[in-house]
Amino acid sequence: MELHERVFEISLTRLIFYPSNEPYGTIAGFYDYGPIGIRIKRNIEKLWREFFIESEANLEVQSTIVTPEPVLVASGHVAEFTDPLVECQQCHFKFRADKLIEEKFGMEWQGDWEELKEKLAQLKCPRCGGKLGKPYKVNLMFKTEIGYDGTKAYLRPETAQGIFTAFPRLFKLAGAQLPMAVGQIGKSFRNEISPRRGLVRLREFTQAELEYFMDPERQAHPRFNELAEGKFNFKHRSSKEVVKETPKSLVEKGICSEVFAYHLAKEWLFFKTLGLKEEKMWFRHLREDETPHYSGGNIDMEVETSYGIIEIAGNAYRTDYDLGQHYKHTNDKGFKVKLEGRELIPHVFEVSIGIDRTLFAVLEHSFKEKGNKEEGKKGWAWFRFTTAVAPYDALVGPLLSNDERLVEKAKATYEKLRMESLDVLYRERGSIGKRYAKADEIGIPYAITIDHQSLENNTVTIRFRDSGEQERVAIDELAEKIKHYITENKTT
Amino acid sequence: MELHERVFEISLTRLIFYPSNEPYGTIAGFYDYGPIGIRIKRNIEKLWREFFIESEANLEVQSTIVTPEPVLVASGHVAEFTDPLVECQQCHFKFRADKLIEEKFGMEWQGDWEELKEKLAQLKCPRCGGKLGKPYKVNLMFKTEIGYDGTKAYLRPETAQGIFTAFPRLFKLAGAQLPMAVGQIGKSFRNEISPRRGLVRLREFTQAELEYFMDPERQAHPRFNELAEGKFNFKHRSSKEVVKETPKSLVEKGICSEVFAYHLAKEWLFFKTLGLKEEKMWFRHLREDETPHYSGGNIDMEVETSYGIIEIAGNAYRTDYDLGQHYKHTNDKGFKVKLEGRELIPHVFEVSIGIDRTLFAVLEHSFKEKGNKEEGKKGWAWFRFTTAVAPYDALVGPLLSNDERLVEKAKATYEKLRMESLDVLYRERGSIGKRYAKADEIGIPYAITIDHQSLENNTVTIRFRDSGEQERVAIDELAEKIKHYITENKTT
Repeated sequence: MELHERVFEISLTRLIFYPSNEPYGTIAGFYDYGPIGIRIKRNIEKLWREFFIESEANLEVQSTIVTPEPVLVASGHVAEFTDPLVECQQCHFKFRADKLIEEKFGMEWQGDWEELKEKLAQLKCPRCGGKLGKPYKVNLMFKTEIGYDGTKAYLRPETAQGIFTAFPRLFKLAGAQLPMAVGQIGKSFRNEISPRRGLVRLREFTQAELEYFMDPERQAHPRFNELAEGKFNFKHRSSKEVVKETPKSLVEKGICSEVFAYHLAKEWLFFKTLGLKEEKMWFRHLREDETPHYSGGNIDMEVETSYGIIEIAGNAYRTDYDLGQHYKHTNDKGFKVKLEGRELIPHVFEVSIGIDRTLFAVLEHSFKEKGNKEEGKKGWAWFRFTTAVAPYDALVGPLLSNDERLVEKAKATYEKLRMESLDVLYRERGSIGKRYAKADEIGIPYAITIDHQSLENNTVTIRFRDSGEQERVAIDELAEKIKHYITENKTT
Repeated sequence: MELHERVFEISLTRLIFYPSNEPYGTIAGFYDYGPIGIRIKRNIEKLWREFFIESEANLEVQSTIVTPEPVLVASGHVAEFTDPLVECQQCHFKFRADKLIEEKFGMEWQGDWEELKEKLAQLKCPRCGGKLGKPYKVNLMFKTEIGYDGTKAYLRPETAQGIFTAFPRLFKLAGAQLPMAVGQIGKSFRNEISPRRGLVRLREFTQAELEYFMDPERQAHPRFNELAEGKFNFKHRSSKEVVKETPKSLVEKGICSEVFAYHLAKEWLFFKTLGLKEEKMWFRHLREDETPHYSGGNIDMEVETSYGIIEIAGNAYRTDYDLGQHYKHTNDKGFKVKLEGRELIPHVFEVSIGIDRTLFAVLEHSFKEKGNKEEGKKGWAWFRFTTAVAPYDALVGPLLSNDERLVEKAKATYEKLRMESLDVLYRERGSIGKRYAKADEIGIPYAITIDHQSLENNTVTIRFRDSGEQERVAIDELAEKIKHYITENKTT
């Protein structure tokens, strides 16, 4: 059983994620988050907000999902956000034409339609052996209509466009200074032809994007020195090898700007805080033929999973392309800014993070199994989440559920911790051993038990998930202690 | 100028909300939240989560927006979620047919199509005087397609259905006991024909819904006594008068169950904590002809705004309708539960809150203006948000921005408060008076100033928004003090 199958199986039973509208039969590319999954997801979003909004005093917005067609004509999505499709003329199944020839000829299709036709002519339908038709383009956006007069619209394919179209208002009213950075977390949609790989390729997914608007002549970052020496893994364009680089070294080598490199270092810390394994993650500098024509450089964050290498974040110097396109299509002068006598369209550096893929990578990298290692048999599974990610900060309960005094004190302790803004889960049913085991399964780092000694001297035990070790703590100091351990990510 | 016009004007300049994709021309029914608005919205959502999820140990989920057609056939939305439309045969403008006859004849249309046709025949087009065509039904859901094989889908018209279709998995794996309550916050969509009234009638909006699954024979609530005596405003079916009721009195009068009444009391506290004015809000018990055929009772929360009375929440005893429909359409046995030898489909009580309408009502009820009261002239405007809603907890800054020592200490104080999980805004530009005024405008309750005395004895001033009064506090006690004032909602 592959790791992602095992993680999926566990996600289903522990209510992390599961197929949407399940009783109606699964439609690929749609998953819901359950009561445990939504807590993990919200923790990832909360950490993103701390890293990319609050700690930088950046702005956050929430724009609409339904987007009128002209916006996406300007952005290029209507013309260019497409995949080539081919239909079997016998069984009428539709395939990604480029994937078919890639699988068969071991090549990466570069966009040449004559070549695609020629190669497809040599193939039969992989399902029925029938003849394949001619390839054609389909747009990957979900289409819809606003009102009843044929006003065409799409579900946004990225959250970024809502930030770009709000730029004139935001710039004018939020200080009229560059740099200005605006972020957004929200759902985006891509009507993939036949999505596979669970949370890695979704038709409805959550993005966290940051658009950093700047004067192209000033790409130094005011806080660069704070992170300049921070090491991260890096794959250069010319190489398959992972080496260590720092913001400083990248800037010195002329690979990217201070703004770009600063955000890479920040992103590295973000993913590490979420519990991704350093030895399984790296930045990769994309080749020019992998980036759009307007790009001033792209660096992806890649991680190893049991599905292979997946991209969980893209960092892109988008130049003045986006604002320039919207300016061209609307003639709204707000897309240009005046700076010390110059008039210019601001340049954009973007950090785009896939929240679902990040969550999936966190699940895989945090997953532990012990016990039965025989082929095909399962052991005891749990998640070693960091304290930043764990669905609850602590489990609270009485040693015995049939002792009223213990139950009462346990409930009071639970309420006390809740009032201190800790995310706590109260449980009293079942033996204490089983309760610990269940808390371990969903990665709760601390389990607090109220026992007979608690009644005598107002102390409780904290049990640490990863070591099983226990510490006795005064109830009055409990909240502070746990907060301190959370900050230190102490789980043993 | 009407209050909602004034609030809209201020929302535009203070980046609370503004039309989506503005440079492309406004499309009715779509608004974005700006950097201030998103903080207010998130605070409302956070308080909802505390009231309806965390404090009750309820479950939260996040289901997908794109919903396959069979789900919405079962729920009744495909057949019944419609409005009657009529098109002018001359100018081809489309109108809500029922609204036209309601405006003209001062009547409320009850769904009789013969009557609708007959009345419309007596009318001309209000825009051009042309002849009106025949009325016809349009479905209010946004349509789309999944993949490229004609799989029909809609954007969900409510978040509830994603909870219902997940019921079998959730019930089985989250304890298999009733009651079980599951909530969700998320975007829903209604393709309104010609939406007006800003945030009150949106095509894309945010809902917070709670579905309380219960044994119909056990509608007592375990925590009923905690809120049984809580008074709220209530309009009985038979009356236009607002009277005081309590959960206890409603249950005694046989108006609703304990479960229903308990949640009304909770909701009342929720909206009061958000700063809605008690004298402008009430529950209204809907008449039977206002509720669906399966309903066991509906009670709306209504508030007065400058648009008139608007519904901001609906409370509904939905009986076994929803789970019953999904059971009928899927035959999934998970929609039935076994309890002490009985097999039954759980009944549902629902609390459905419109987040955008709530936010709008909060803006209107918190709005204050003083100064120039002459006709057509504007005074000085600000929002007296409660501490639960305010976009920031506190403003922090130096008395003078040109004194390096003050700036340094102000920045350190800001970081210290941030580390204590307070939402703080740092500002140093402009005079202290102007900074206070700007903080008042967006309703920040406390402004903390670092002055020369701060350098000597480590104290700062806290200025209270609503009184302008100041208090001197030791920096070491500042965070605790502010947290205490936040809990008390002290703003003077």
